[in-house]
Amino acid sequence: MIGRRLVNGSETAGIAADDRGLQYGDGLFETMAATGGRIPRLPLHLARLEDGCRRLKFPMPPASLIEDECERVLEGMGTATVKLTITRGPGPRGYRPTADPSVTRIVVSSAARPRGDALEPAVLRICDTRMGLNPLLAGLKHLNRLEQVMACSEWDDPGIDEGLMLSSDGRLVCATAANVFLVEDGRLVTPAIRDCGVAGVMRQVVLAAAADIGLPVVVEDVQPDRLATADELFFTNAVVGIRPVQELVGVRRWAAGEITRKLMDCTA
Amino acid sequence: MIGRRLVNGSETAGIAADDRGLQYGDGLFETMAATGGRIPRLPLHLARLEDGCRRLKFPMPPASLIEDECERVLEGMGTATVKLTITRGPGPRGYRPTADPSVTRIVVSSAARPRGDALEPAVLRICDTRMGLNPLLAGLKHLNRLEQVMACSEWDDPGIDEGLMLSSDGRLVCATAANVFLVEDGRLVTPAIRDCGVAGVMRQVVLAAAADIGLPVVVEDVQPDRLATADELFFTNAVVGIRPVQELVGVRRWAAGEITRKLMDCTA
Repeated sequence: MIGRRLVNGSETAGIAADDRGLQYGDGLFETMAATGGRIPRLPLHLARLEDGCRRLKFPMPPASLIEDECERVLEGMGTATVKLTITRGPGPRGYRPTADPSVTRIVVSSAARPRGDALEPAVLRICDTRMGLNPLLAGLKHLNRLEQVMACSEWDDPGIDEGLMLSSDGRLVCATAANVFLVEDGRLVTPAIRDCGVAGVMRQVVLAAAADIGLPVVVEDVQPDRLATADELFFTNAVVGIRPVQELVGVRRWAAGEITRKLMDCTA
Repeated sequence: MIGRRLVNGSETAGIAADDRGLQYGDGLFETMAATGGRIPRLPLHLARLEDGCRRLKFPMPPASLIEDECERVLEGMGTATVKLTITRGPGPRGYRPTADPSVTRIVVSSAARPRGDALEPAVLRICDTRMGLNPLLAGLKHLNRLEQVMACSEWDDPGIDEGLMLSSDGRLVCATAANVFLVEDGRLVTPAIRDCGVAGVMRQVVLAAAADIGLPVVVEDVQPDRLATADELFFTNAVVGIRPVQELVGVRRWAAGEITRKLMDCTA
């Protein structure tokens, strides 16, 4: 894939072997959609990153520096994806964070897949791998992602596009790399992200869009048996946007849904 | 600290920015005690690493290669610590593991702190940060360690040596970087590691030693209120060995314990 990479602003730098991002997954990332050299939702990503830095207690690099580096990796690219990773930086052995961290920045661009493909209604499965509960880390897009890695390694059928994940106590939380929304009796429902899962930027965009068009929204604990009776189902992430679901394997199939379509139109 | 580092056998190589160890914490590590250029418990560490590779589904580097690289980083060093990290290696964006991973090896030595200091009876606290439940990952020393990082960032009083951690459902599991043992009525008790926590190599050594000297051993779920009534308390890891506990802040203090001393003697 065509793209560019900057580590702390340098095209040639590598990552130190003692970077805490590598040692402990001690960092955060954002995966962002770009078009014509710009990242339309960059302010939302930066806001989530700032919240993450505050909660993990390390300093956020200046937003202007991040904006600059995103611009550099996007130079000359059309539709693209930018992955931004920041870590607590190099540190001695031992979990305790250093008092004065030197935060590492990694900005990588890659050409995006054609959007048309991604928008074909998806086929989902339910993963066996569940998500442990930790309110301190819930919502953050941090670098501790072994649960997602294990969930994605459960299937290799290319006909399956994504996998839904449950919490360790059996609630529906999200997909491996997306948030999930149900439509029930004309209301939009999405699982509360309070003790596990990632609170995606596109989830936030959809919740705001629903409020704008007067669609009732419910954010609450969702038991997975509600999937069988939902009128529509879709998932969201910052790269794909909204993707409708046509089938949850072994549970049910859906025709194209009107509310999903309406939300796609007003968030495109 | 004096020491040496090898990345995939090279003294000058860095880590690729797309290494899955950094992207997702997709890897494992071992921290090992060395003396006179040798790691006495290397076979136990390699066995745990092999189990971890099998469970995370990536190939273990040849043991002879690891042994070789440990020997190289220990050349000319006395009492030392070796940290061995292996990851699923570089990979494209996306959680799904690549079919044919090129595993990354990082071997780092550092001069050990004098053992005398480490053996002074420790002062512990109980951390607020809890551990989420995931049986698929429990026991492994994987690179998803944000819970330990958050737990260690809770205190900065240098008089406190370690913090005990509970599971999300309130059981005593381990310390941030150690396993924990209670002595109750002449029996040795340690929490079962079945849905969270690390199953340390030294924990295994102590359990075997206890069996050897005819000490009854119980591995089970342990509620934290048993700490207040335990006759002795100690923690273990591969670098420190066994370290007695003299105080759990706000709960109780202990005098030197006979069974702890006996186990220290026969595992030294």
